[in-house]
Amino acid sequence: MSQPPPTVKASIDAIRMLALDAVEQAKSGHPGMPMGMAPAAYVLWTEFLKHNPKDPNWPARDRFVLSAGHGSMLLYALLHLSGYDLPLEELKRFRQWDSKTPGHPEYGHTPGVEVTTGPLGQGISTAVGMAIAERKLVAEFGEIAEHYTYVIASDGDLMEGVSGEASSLAGHLRLGKLIVLYDDNDISIDGRTELAFTEDRLKRYEAYGWHVVPGVEGEDLGAIRAALREARADPRPSLISVRSIIGFGSPLAGHHKAHSDAMGPEKVAATRQALGWPHAPFEIPEEIYADYRRALEKGAQAQAEWEAKLEALAQASPDKVAEFRRRIERQLPQGWEAHLPSFAAGEKLATRAASGKVLEKLVPVLPELMGGSADLTPSNNTRTPDMTDFSPDNPAGRYIRYGVREHAMGAIMNGLALSRALRPYGGTFLVFSDYMRPAVRMAAIMGVPTIFVFTHDSIAVGEDGPTHQPIEHVMSLRAIPNLWVIRPADANETAVAWKMALERTDGPTALILTRQALPVLDGVRPKGVERGGYIISNVPEAKAAIVATGSEVSLALEAQKLLAEGGIAVRVVSLPCWEAFEAQPEAYREGILPRNLPTLALEAGTTLGWERYAQRVVGLDRFGASAPFADVYSKLGFTRERVAAEVRALLGV
Amino acid sequence: MSQPPPTVKASIDAIRMLALDAVEQAKSGHPGMPMGMAPAAYVLWTEFLKHNPKDPNWPARDRFVLSAGHGSMLLYALLHLSGYDLPLEELKRFRQWDSKTPGHPEYGHTPGVEVTTGPLGQGISTAVGMAIAERKLVAEFGEIAEHYTYVIASDGDLMEGVSGEASSLAGHLRLGKLIVLYDDNDISIDGRTELAFTEDRLKRYEAYGWHVVPGVEGEDLGAIRAALREARADPRPSLISVRSIIGFGSPLAGHHKAHSDAMGPEKVAATRQALGWPHAPFEIPEEIYADYRRALEKGAQAQAEWEAKLEALAQASPDKVAEFRRRIERQLPQGWEAHLPSFAAGEKLATRAASGKVLEKLVPVLPELMGGSADLTPSNNTRTPDMTDFSPDNPAGRYIRYGVREHAMGAIMNGLALSRALRPYGGTFLVFSDYMRPAVRMAAIMGVPTIFVFTHDSIAVGEDGPTHQPIEHVMSLRAIPNLWVIRPADANETAVAWKMALERTDGPTALILTRQALPVLDGVRPKGVERGGYIISNVPEAKAAIVATGSEVSLALEAQKLLAEGGIAVRVVSLPCWEAFEAQPEAYREGILPRNLPTLALEAGTTLGWERYAQRVVGLDRFGASAPFADVYSKLGFTRERVAAEVRALLGV
Repeated sequence: MSQPPPTVKASIDAIRMLALDAVEQAKSGHPGMPMGMAPAAYVLWTEFLKHNPKDPNWPARDRFVLSAGHGSMLLYALLHLSGYDLPLEELKRFRQWDSKTPGHPEYGHTPGVEVTTGPLGQGISTAVGMAIAERKLVAEFGEIAEHYTYVIASDGDLMEGVSGEASSLAGHLRLGKLIVLYDDNDISIDGRTELAFTEDRLKRYEAYGWHVVPGVEGEDLGAIRAALREARADPRPSLISVRSIIGFGSPLAGHHKAHSDAMGPEKVAATRQALGWPHAPFEIPEEIYADYRRALEKGAQAQAEWEAKLEALAQASPDKVAEFRRRIERQLPQGWEAHLPSFAAGEKLATRAASGKVLEKLVPVLPELMGGSADLTPSNNTRTPDMTDFSPDNPAGRYIRYGVREHAMGAIMNGLALSRALRPYGGTFLVFSDYMRPAVRMAAIMGVPTIFVFTHDSIAVGEDGPTHQPIEHVMSLRAIPNLWVIRPADANETAVAWKMALERTDGPTALILTRQALPVLDGVRPKGVERGGYIISNVPEAKAAIVATGSEVSLALEAQKLLAEGGIAVRVVSLPCWEAFEAQPEAYREGILPRNLPTLALEAGTTLGWERYAQRVVGLDRFGASAPFADVYSKLGFTRERVAAEVRALLGV
Repeated sequence: MSQPPPTVKASIDAIRMLALDAVEQAKSGHPGMPMGMAPAAYVLWTEFLKHNPKDPNWPARDRFVLSAGHGSMLLYALLHLSGYDLPLEELKRFRQWDSKTPGHPEYGHTPGVEVTTGPLGQGISTAVGMAIAERKLVAEFGEIAEHYTYVIASDGDLMEGVSGEASSLAGHLRLGKLIVLYDDNDISIDGRTELAFTEDRLKRYEAYGWHVVPGVEGEDLGAIRAALREARADPRPSLISVRSIIGFGSPLAGHHKAHSDAMGPEKVAATRQALGWPHAPFEIPEEIYADYRRALEKGAQAQAEWEAKLEALAQASPDKVAEFRRRIERQLPQGWEAHLPSFAAGEKLATRAASGKVLEKLVPVLPELMGGSADLTPSNNTRTPDMTDFSPDNPAGRYIRYGVREHAMGAIMNGLALSRALRPYGGTFLVFSDYMRPAVRMAAIMGVPTIFVFTHDSIAVGEDGPTHQPIEHVMSLRAIPNLWVIRPADANETAVAWKMALERTDGPTALILTRQALPVLDGVRPKGVERGGYIISNVPEAKAAIVATGSEVSLALEAQKLLAEGGIAVRVVSLPCWEAFEAQPEAYREGILPRNLPTLALEAGTTLGWERYAQRVVGLDRFGASAPFADVYSKLGFTRERVAAEVRALLGV
């Protein structure tokens, strides 16, 4: 192993000391990983990474994903040193209110942060989506879309199941431009990884079909360089085992206590001594800046060359470049919504089937749509006749066979969405939204417009029984900030729901669809759906309202008739999207659900939460049961008679 | 490959035809897997499985886990044929309301069903917990606790990340008595597994440290037998690749269409023909019953031998057997609760720290407690000085190092709980409850008393920022039926919360604990905590109530003081456990939170759901932020001034 020249060593130590000093100042944070991985990161960032610090949004930049997000100071140090808009002042305010340097990297908050990371396994799995997006966009647009996706991942990332799911798929898809530097340091929070993690990780990645580079010493710049070169040359995704030493240079080097928390002034001083770093905290010599900021010139030049290519392409194929720009800007093509189908009252079809018909119309006009399912394609109605499977032999394919890997699907879709040029959607059963919930939350935190297609949305699933019947799921999804949850009442509401999901650009949407057929209703008002809720059936002098969603809107309308026969006039409100409704002005909401109108809520799910809109709730606070759908539905109380009786009870008549 | 003798073939075909005919009758279900795996299941059940159909609760029975739960008819056929209390009539009512044969096997519902399965990956992961329990109980009680754990798992099970997490841990722990028959049939719902699942599964399991038997033909009884023998002899957990043919014998054999749904009368008739099965649907010749029901005599004899051993042990070590019986009956030892610590007002400690102190007292007196953490031991306060790590060299250890594998931890804990003789608890951050949510739900469906320790329960996590700050999690857990969610307000409430969790035997409990220190409060009433909610501070002629949980109870008490200074008398209600509170009589609830007393709810989480108890809510419907805890907490509105102002607004004064 060759020693780095002193100037290089100083550049590497700058990362270490910025991390250590920032954590010390914040009295909180994770110094160990940045100190261990500084050399690998240095080689990657100064020799391989194609990026322009002055334009973090350059579409062809290489992506760098710090999957081990707790080591955020590694990334902040690199961004600052390389000349991104992240002044030293922000590093001094590490983990403080309103700083650009939060505890874990946040997408959209700090220039140069590609993905929000922290929850382990998410970064590496999202990176698989980024690598798929690259492959797909190159198939569409050629070399202007080319980039690598680099990841630094930790033991924790590799222990999480989601990374296994995503890595298996990455191997299957032969995503050769995905390169993971695995911080193989034998340490996790509880202590040495031998406590719990003794599997042969590299062999596992070989089993996934990855190219694996074993035993690269963390301080050996030459070996790191050679491994990265080898990885770039290999057609498979690569995992490079970087044998780093956590907390390198500090008295806690190699110990799990180096993972987190400020080390205290004595250990920080000892580290200065050991590394031979004579500078005060946050003092970086000019030559170190100069070393890193070669990236500015290199990046500007690379981007200029790319712009020239784009210009040439614009001459040759103006439409293609216009399309590329449209896609990157997340502008939908003009007039696309004219292709949304409408359905005639009298038809009867499941909203999942309606969703399939919507997609049949939209897939040809929205090339950004990238579909998929976690091995439930025939049930989710997510694949249209125009779609072919994305595969190594067919990189232009628009449909991803995710396998039975809901969690990876969620994270990968987030990665696709981060490309901006693709609009991913993916299907599974609503009950399995639990399997991918951390990825749904990441989409919501990042504000990316991933579309989750959740079918089989209630006990009406029927025979499959309680393990497959969602109860708490719709409400639990509504509880996630910035996620729109839309449960359409029929086929026409489903078409509007897709419109809403596609027009959203600042957050994800969950479409909640039935397995069972529903009548196409008379009173659907698209504008009302877009406002989240509206009166689907009114009567003069209503004595009460029934507010319902999805399949229960039909039931509410039946109960309305029954009540009318008994002389009780009720209004029926369809409330497909709480989030949109709650964004409406007070006057609109009061017009739909007046405060003084006795209201019954009706949804085949938990009652919890419905007290927001109703004084009485017909729902389900128990698990379901296995039987034909009509039996389960009626035995658990979803009959017009029951609903009518509950309205009467509400009115005391 | 040798052909089975005709009588054996008939026994195997009986499973196939029962599955096919039951699905046909139900017009729903999954015939393919039972038809493919019938031979392997036959060999396992008739030659290896130690069980007594007349006593499905015999503690020393081998466990059989149908991880591929959709193939439930395989299990129902085996149970019925072997003489369990599952009459033919119930098989005819497959998937019908109130039958003993629901779509997926349900623990506690059908005799002989060991685990509820269906959501893929759960069964195999829960089985890891069962195998750990066996190892641990043998270390405690000797051979009377010995059994094997057998699993049938599908491609879907192996694609799910949770099974990877659990299998990695199983290899690490060298659980030699765990044997998985992998239905390696190349088929999933979307089509051939080559669509998405081309990794080298067997090599992956080798990497986990498993013993792997490749390429066992699904129809080769001799090879199946040899593989099972080899697996039992090997000290590592075993994965046997059974190369079965989905839908064997039917015209859809080998095709993904055989996976689910009734095949229709023509294909059923063709299958009868192909298998040479002359009998009517649900008609089973006596000689086939006789073949399977050898299990009755063998089982009775095996159990009698075991009872004799138990008797002998009772002579030699009466205390040990009494303890074994106590544990199996889930009776807590007399007087255990006297060991619960109490804390003096004036102290200040985080409820996670209080939880650690409670465990320090309980671990010595409750040997059934089996702790663990998903690599957050120092943060979760889950390991007491009396505990040693469970490991291959220390099978008596009471602490499991789960690694960064929350989801597997959840499923494994469920497997531990199913032993009845262990009471598992395991820790992670509340925000990562999302990672294990499917396992939490399984515990709730099965009604097993798994204890989830969720620390770092709000934005008060501070610097780690939004990815680590729960917002929607407490309410989302409350939405799960049969899960108790307890968020104690201080150290003394924490002690009671543990008491409640341990006294529950019919469902799981989530303990929601703070990272930050809280004052030990004056007004805590243990009986009130056990009832789910109580008045922690009353005043004469209260004009309003503040209802709060956890850390916000202290804040409510501060706001109460502030309001009192302004002449406004308010009552403060602590509501640590909604589920317990909602089980109280109306009169009790009305006494605590009278309908006509204006009420403000206060919780550092989503407002959704609190409308049940309050007309106004101080909560948080956005993601958090990275900064020191006091900053985040106050900037996001959790100050006594804000709370007081909200009460005033509520009262219109």
